[in-house]
Amino acid sequence: MFCSILWIPYSTLCFYYVSSIWSIFNRGDSAVPGAECLPLWPQVTVFEQEHFQGRCQEFTSECCNIQDCGLDNIRSIRVESGAWVGYEHHDFQGQQFILERGEYPHWDAYSGSLAYHVERLMSLRPIYCASHQSSRMTIYEMENFLGRSVEMCDDYPSLQAMGWMKPEVGSMHVQCGAFVCYQFPGYRGQQYIMECERHSGDFQHWKNWGSHCQTPQIQSIRRIHH
Amino acid sequence: MFCSILWIPYSTLCFYYVSSIWSIFNRGDSAVPGAECLPLWPQVTVFEQEHFQGRCQEFTSECCNIQDCGLDNIRSIRVESGAWVGYEHHDFQGQQFILERGEYPHWDAYSGSLAYHVERLMSLRPIYCASHQSSRMTIYEMENFLGRSVEMCDDYPSLQAMGWMKPEVGSMHVQCGAFVCYQFPGYRGQQYIMECERHSGDFQHWKNWGSHCQTPQIQSIRRIHH
Repeated sequence: MFCSILWIPYSTLCFYYVSSIWSIFNRGDSAVPGAECLPLWPQVTVFEQEHFQGRCQEFTSECCNIQDCGLDNIRSIRVESGAWVGYEHHDFQGQQFILERGEYPHWDAYSGSLAYHVERLMSLRPIYCASHQSSRMTIYEMENFLGRSVEMCDDYPSLQAMGWMKPEVGSMHVQCGAFVCYQFPGYRGQQYIMECERHSGDFQHWKNWGSHCQTPQIQSIRRIHH
Repeated sequence: MFCSILWIPYSTLCFYYVSSIWSIFNRGDSAVPGAECLPLWPQVTVFEQEHFQGRCQEFTSECCNIQDCGLDNIRSIRVESGAWVGYEHHDFQGQQFILERGEYPHWDAYSGSLAYHVERLMSLRPIYCASHQSSRMTIYEMENFLGRSVEMCDDYPSLQAMGWMKPEVGSMHVQCGAFVCYQFPGYRGQQYIMECERHSGDFQHWKNWGSHCQTPQIQSIRRIHH
């Protein structure tokens, strides 16, 4: 659906504002500028081959094993709405890949780790609690929520540029929304999806960050967008 | 330098605030909470081997060919301060890699494109105009600043989630600060550094985005941090 009111040359509109209106239009509600933007129903289409070729399957809720849906593997992805997390193995195990709205024509469009290069994506699920506007978490220097801490409510491509002294984080508590933590600055390397609705938002040791986690190294963190 | 006043358990301090104080301490000025945070002097150490091994060289300004400095290649990087951009070839040509403060132990810690996998970084320079707080740019649907447009002042891991309808951008104008544009959502794929101080901030065609650019595809954009 095209809505010309959204596009004003040399506009000074904030992009969030545009997005809010757009989401309202998309749901067929009346346009109320400034109204709260609720997430659309999550929807993703996955393809067995790269560049959106081969057999495909659409999902609007979690899939714990794509082989049960008749696909051998997932090699390209089109996220229509919502925020999703993909996993290397079935039953939501192994490397985690954040998938926000857009086109991912091949594995390295969503993976961040060449060091562990296995082109597999066998399960996926939507992230319902993602909230770009109100996500909030606290990171701690040591395990079990000990040591120095900082509360975070924005995106941080370099924790060290923001004052965090070490390339590691000991533990984390997500109060609200969802974040992606990355091994390297600039949102690169291994990805760890941290949600307030998983483990009550408590991640007291790097071994709780995911079955693929082998180090407490985290150097960038950002909120997840619907 | 360690400054205990910065770390308050269960603090509700904004991270920017912490960072501002930290930067002021680092410069040896008096601590004035809320005072403007000027960038530190840029400083980077590059290493000929991965994991910060082999011959190394420190830079505080641009280097147009690291072979002139006695290094064959750069395979790991430690950014001490400032924001930098690395290039695949000498004289600031080829793939661009954003380098913010932190540790990059190997090539895939800063590269985003497996599809074009050449492990080279031959020149680098600081980005003086990066301003996380006040960066602003306008993206246009078509070349030469035509068609629909949106002004941007934040980070956007998915342009489509924010209301942009296509996986491409026609042209861009950077009014203030500096941004990184990425080929895929979630800050992945080819990187294009866009600065207000280059080409007067005007990037009227994708052929102006960098010598490595072969497509107008851009699906995520973020500000650059010092």
